[in-house]
Amino acid sequence: MTDPRSSPTPAASARTTVRRGVDRATYDAAQIRSILHAGVIAHVGVTTPDGPIVLPMAYGIRPRAHDHGDGADPGGGDEAGHEVLLHGSLANALLRAGRSIDVCLTVTIVDGLVIARTPLHNSMNYRSVVVRGTATAVEGIDARRMALRVINDHVAAIWDDARTPSDSDVRKTLVLAIPLDEASAKVRVGDPSDEQHDLAGPHWAGVVPLTATWGPPRTAADLREDVAPPAAVISLAGSDAHAEA
Amino acid sequence: MTDPRSSPTPAASARTTVRRGVDRATYDAAQIRSILHAGVIAHVGVTTPDGPIVLPMAYGIRPRAHDHGDGADPGGGDEAGHEVLLHGSLANALLRAGRSIDVCLTVTIVDGLVIARTPLHNSMNYRSVVVRGTATAVEGIDARRMALRVINDHVAAIWDDARTPSDSDVRKTLVLAIPLDEASAKVRVGDPSDEQHDLAGPHWAGVVPLTATWGPPRTAADLREDVAPPAAVISLAGSDAHAEA
Repeated sequence: MTDPRSSPTPAASARTTVRRGVDRATYDAAQIRSILHAGVIAHVGVTTPDGPIVLPMAYGIRPRAHDHGDGADPGGGDEAGHEVLLHGSLANALLRAGRSIDVCLTVTIVDGLVIARTPLHNSMNYRSVVVRGTATAVEGIDARRMALRVINDHVAAIWDDARTPSDSDVRKTLVLAIPLDEASAKVRVGDPSDEQHDLAGPHWAGVVPLTATWGPPRTAADLREDVAPPAAVISLAGSDAHAEA
Repeated sequence: MTDPRSSPTPAASARTTVRRGVDRATYDAAQIRSILHAGVIAHVGVTTPDGPIVLPMAYGIRPRAHDHGDGADPGGGDEAGHEVLLHGSLANALLRAGRSIDVCLTVTIVDGLVIARTPLHNSMNYRSVVVRGTATAVEGIDARRMALRVINDHVAAIWDDARTPSDSDVRKTLVLAIPLDEASAKVRVGDPSDEQHDLAGPHWAGVVPLTATWGPPRTAADLREDVAPPAAVISLAGSDAHAEA
């Protein structure tokens, strides 16, 4: 797993990605969004007075045709690009110093362990996205509620089946938006890439796939007896958590 | 998912972790190591002249009773603590500026989606470790080979079944060590924590578990016909990738 920002190449299509030892970077916006949609958590890095810090966070992604409530119109339409949204008490901590902060947000999905004939060619198959940019607070109660909905519906569309948050709850919850302008993806698929002189050797080579699967929902111990899980929750069971749409 | 470094409390035992809405930080060294052993990749953050950057990397963990080849004896025995090891071309890039660098290394395992009666109490069940410290290069060919073995054997003990790397291969491969001195873990398990006034409401609440599983090994297309996967690879198939020992 090397720097996903190095050696940019055109995005791989479905037909071209299944080949031996592919390990390529792309700046293709659709592929970047596709990986972000398939991820479950992001690792967000910021610089603090005593060094870098990286924390796991839930996130969401949406087109940027939204007014953050500060009167600035980012443009609207597809041309305005997309943005990644973060929320929670960590957003609070990040924003302690001001209303915007320089961040790096990375989402990685591991698809398999790549075992070569010699360990220095071992690798992983994976999909990752690195987003760098300035995170700014989403202002305005309606804009913030819409952003919270996007984050909460990232894995499954569960917002509509829950009790709507009150205005005062939304007011207390910070949400950050990071433009998807400076982002890159890196994808590795396929077999190990061994040295030519190792191919005839006695050592095994191949891939051990890794799959993340949602299990059947477990009802909370304090739930009323007559409440069934919503369809969006039931349909998660047995599904690949990192499938791309 | 909030700052895993906040509100330290004693480590949870197996008997006490299964309770409603547990979300606790710990500095217990055994639990920190246990989560690091159960993880597959780390997200490593560094500060660069144009902001923070976070990249996914393979890693390993071992007791620090090892001479890095620089003549400094870190102490030896259990008292010397443990260290996390990183390698590859990214290590190269990280070290471009010198032989040591300030990093934050975070490992997160997502165990489930926590669905509350109202979205602002939605969460995830997870295990995470945050390590901050100075990464330094492991010097000396024997020390570096030992470190590479630890990284390569992190998921499965595959080093001994492969072709041993040559001295010149090892010489070209940078390895970084980060002491496990400044580390914290955070673990959330169990049901959502809803507001008392929501408990009698009509909304579902519970957990959708997430499990990562290794699949059966897929032999490389260019492998000799008579080579079978080693036992360490075969035994991965069907196993929980994030099981704690």
